[in-house]
Amino acid sequence: MSTTYRRGRTPSLDLVAGNGLIDRRALLGKGIAVAGAMGAAGTVTGAAAEPLKDEQWSLEFGSIMPPVQTASKYEKDVVRSLSNPQGEFRNSHARTPHHLLNGTVTPNGLHFSINHCGVPDIDPAKHKLVIHGMVRQPLEFTLEQLSRYPLVTRMAFVECAGNSAPMFSNQPLQVTAQALHGLVSNAEWTGVRLSTLLDEAGIDPRAKWLIAEGADAQFLDRSIPVKKAYDDALVAIYQNGEHLMPGNGYPMRLLVPGYQGNMNVKFLRRLKAIDQPAYTYFETKNYSQILPGGKTWRFHFLMEVKSFITHPSFGHHLKEPGYYTISGVAYSGAGRIAKVLVSADGGKSWGEAALQAPVLDKAFTRFQMPWRWDGQPAILQSRAWDEAGNVQPLRAEFVAARGETKQPLASPLLFPNQHYNSITSWAVDSKGEIKHVYA
Amino acid sequence: MSTTYRRGRTPSLDLVAGNGLIDRRALLGKGIAVAGAMGAAGTVTGAAAEPLKDEQWSLEFGSIMPPVQTASKYEKDVVRSLSNPQGEFRNSHARTPHHLLNGTVTPNGLHFSINHCGVPDIDPAKHKLVIHGMVRQPLEFTLEQLSRYPLVTRMAFVECAGNSAPMFSNQPLQVTAQALHGLVSNAEWTGVRLSTLLDEAGIDPRAKWLIAEGADAQFLDRSIPVKKAYDDALVAIYQNGEHLMPGNGYPMRLLVPGYQGNMNVKFLRRLKAIDQPAYTYFETKNYSQILPGGKTWRFHFLMEVKSFITHPSFGHHLKEPGYYTISGVAYSGAGRIAKVLVSADGGKSWGEAALQAPVLDKAFTRFQMPWRWDGQPAILQSRAWDEAGNVQPLRAEFVAARGETKQPLASPLLFPNQHYNSITSWAVDSKGEIKHVYA
Repeated sequence: MSTTYRRGRTPSLDLVAGNGLIDRRALLGKGIAVAGAMGAAGTVTGAAAEPLKDEQWSLEFGSIMPPVQTASKYEKDVVRSLSNPQGEFRNSHARTPHHLLNGTVTPNGLHFSINHCGVPDIDPAKHKLVIHGMVRQPLEFTLEQLSRYPLVTRMAFVECAGNSAPMFSNQPLQVTAQALHGLVSNAEWTGVRLSTLLDEAGIDPRAKWLIAEGADAQFLDRSIPVKKAYDDALVAIYQNGEHLMPGNGYPMRLLVPGYQGNMNVKFLRRLKAIDQPAYTYFETKNYSQILPGGKTWRFHFLMEVKSFITHPSFGHHLKEPGYYTISGVAYSGAGRIAKVLVSADGGKSWGEAALQAPVLDKAFTRFQMPWRWDGQPAILQSRAWDEAGNVQPLRAEFVAARGETKQPLASPLLFPNQHYNSITSWAVDSKGEIKHVYA
Repeated sequence: MSTTYRRGRTPSLDLVAGNGLIDRRALLGKGIAVAGAMGAAGTVTGAAAEPLKDEQWSLEFGSIMPPVQTASKYEKDVVRSLSNPQGEFRNSHARTPHHLLNGTVTPNGLHFSINHCGVPDIDPAKHKLVIHGMVRQPLEFTLEQLSRYPLVTRMAFVECAGNSAPMFSNQPLQVTAQALHGLVSNAEWTGVRLSTLLDEAGIDPRAKWLIAEGADAQFLDRSIPVKKAYDDALVAIYQNGEHLMPGNGYPMRLLVPGYQGNMNVKFLRRLKAIDQPAYTYFETKNYSQILPGGKTWRFHFLMEVKSFITHPSFGHHLKEPGYYTISGVAYSGAGRIAKVLVSADGGKSWGEAALQAPVLDKAFTRFQMPWRWDGQPAILQSRAWDEAGNVQPLRAEFVAARGETKQPLASPLLFPNQHYNSITSWAVDSKGEIKHVYA
C-alpha cells in the first residue's frame, strides 16, 4: 500500500519459476502495469471515452434500500451448496463457495454449516449455558449475562474434519473448490474467554477435560482438553459483528481455534469438568481418523496446515493468454502461515507467493502469485508452511501415509476419510479450460 | 489470549479512575473472575445442574439450511434504520445498528448506505470503468477484467461526512448510537490498487486530480487528489469476501481510506485525470463544511479521529449494580488508533481502555474498559487519540470552533453540519436507565 506517486520502480518482471510465474515483488510498485504485463483492460480511443454510454440504471430512480441488504441478483450463483436441501432426517451440509469469493472473511450468509438434526430455533431468553462437574460453584449463563463480560475479538477459521474428503478418491473428481473444500470458513468471532468462566466457577485442578454439549436434538458432545480451554478457547456470541448465525451456533458456541470443526460445539448448553475424556459418539464412532491397516487415531484435534487455489480453479475459464493473478487461501491449526509456494508446472518448480497482511493466528491468509499465462497447458498448485514448521504434504506422501479410496464415488459426501491437507492441482489446457488433476 | 492454565495472577482489581473504572490489565489473567468481580452469572445448586431442562428445540428436528443463511428471528431488531422507507424521490439513508453489534466487522447486510437516487440495479456484464483524460492510453475495465489483476485486501471504515450530525443540536437527542453514529461502518475490502490502473493508462505527470463519477442516476462525482490515488486508494470489488452489496457500490467502487464517505464513489464508471479539481455539486453545494461566521472549507477530505461507546448506550438498561464491560469503537482517517481513554464520571477522571489487536490503519478498533457499577449515577465517555497525534476534541472545544444548531429538530436528518468528531456521553441513572447527555 506504500507506492509513492511519481517514484515508480524499474519494471521488474523476473520469472521465479517455470510456466510464467512472476516474482511476487512485481505486485509492489509499478512493475506489472508499466511493463504492460496486464493486457487485461480494454483500450478506448480518445473520442469513444466521452461521453460514456448511459445504461438504463443511470437513467432511472433505483430501488428502495432494505433494512438488511442482500447480494445483487447477478450474484445468484454465489450461494452455499446443500447436501440435504429437502431437510430429510439425516445430516446436512452447506458449503462455502470459495471459487466465487475473495479476501479472507467469509460473509455470514455463506459460512459453511453442518447440522446433524437440522437447525434448531433457539430462544436466547431461555437458552442457558451451564458450567458444572468438577467446579467449586456451578454457574449458568444466558446470552445477556455473557454480554456483560470482557469480550475478545479474533479472526479464526473453522474447518470440518471431513473437509476435502473427496480428495481421498483415487480419481480426481471434476468439481469446484466449493465441493472439495467448502467445509471451511473464516470469520471474526467475538466472545468470552472460556478461562474467565472456568475461573469464576472455580474449576478443580484435577479436572483435565470438559465435556461440551450442544442444545441441538442430537446433543452433540465432544471432549475438550482443559489446557485448550485456557490457551485460546472462547464462548463466542458474535460472528462478523452480529450475533451468531442460526446454522453456526446461535446464540452461543464454543470456539477452539484450529481444532476440528465439531469440537467448536454449537448451541453450547453445557460444559462439564471431568478428569478423563468422555469418549462420545462424535469422537469414537464419527470423526475418528481411519488409517491404512484399519487402526484409528483416538484423538486427532488439530487441523493441519493447508492451502488451495481459489482463482483460477475448476469452474473458471481463462479467456485468453496474458496476465492473471493466482490466488487462494492458506491456514493452519498450529498458528500463522509462514510461507506459501506456488507452482504452474505441476510441482517441477516453485515460486514464493505474496501473503496479504495481517497474517493472523489460526485464520485464513490470502496468497497471491502474479502469472503470465502463455496459452500452453499448465498445472497450478499451492503448498503452505506454518510458523510451527509444519508443511503441507505432497500428494504422494499423503496417500502413502493415509490411504485413498478406490471407488470414485458419485457423491463426495460418501467418502469416509478425514483430515485431508495435501495439495490440490488445477490443470489449465490450451483452451483455458480447468480440470482437477492429481499431479 | 496467553493466559497459562494453573498459573493465574494475583487478582488485580485496582481502580484507575473514578466511579468504578478498573485497570484494563484485569482483562488479562484471572483477575476479574477470581476476585468475584463479575457476579453476572447465575449460580446453580449441584443437584439442579444435571439433568438440564430440554427445551423444545432440543426435542425436534430443526429447520432446513438455506443456501444463504440469515439471522435468527430473535434478532429481528438488528436492522438498519431507514430515512426513506417508501423510496420517495429524495436521498435515503440506512444506518448501522452499532448498539446491537460487537467486534469490528460490520456484516454486509448491515453496512450503512446512502443513495441519492435509490439503489441502481447494475448488470456487471455491461458496466464499465473508464480511465481517461490526461492519460497516455484511455482504458476500460469490466468487473471480470479487474478480477485478473493483483488484489489488495484490507479493513477500512467508510464514514459519511454527515455522520453524527445530530450531535450538532444544542440539546442532546434521546436516540441510539445507531441514530447518532450509524453512518459509519467497517468492512474488509478487496480490490485493485488504483495506482496500478493509473500506471497502466499512463497518467500524465501534470494530472493532479481525478474526477470520480458513479453510474447511479445522479452521476455522483467528486474530485480526488492523484496523490491519494497513489497512497492507498483501491477500486474495490469485494466486501467481506463477496462482491459488493448493491447499496455499497456493486459492482465496483472507489475506496479512499479515511476520506469522506461519498468520495468513495460507488458504482464507479469513470476516472478522468485532470490538472485541477472539478468543484462538483457534491463538493461545493453538498458536503461543504459550514463554519461559524458562514464561511466554508473548500475541501475537507479527512475524517477525523473519533470514538463512541456502544455498550452500554442509549436503548440498553443495566439490570443491577455489578460488573459491566464498557465497549465501543474508535477510528481515524489519519491512521491507527493509539489510545482510548474512558471516563465514568463525565470527564473528571479517565482510565486507559484496552485495545483489541490487531489495531489496523484507518479501520475500527474495538476498545474495552472493565467497570464495576455501584448503582449510583454515572456518565460514560470515551476519547480517542491516533498515531498521528490527533485527539478527539472535548465537546466545549468542538462547539466553540464549529458551532451548534439552536433548534432541537425533530429529525436528525435535518441538521446541516458535517464532520462531528467530539465526545458522546451516556448518563446512567440509579435505575440503570441510560440517557444521552452533553457533559
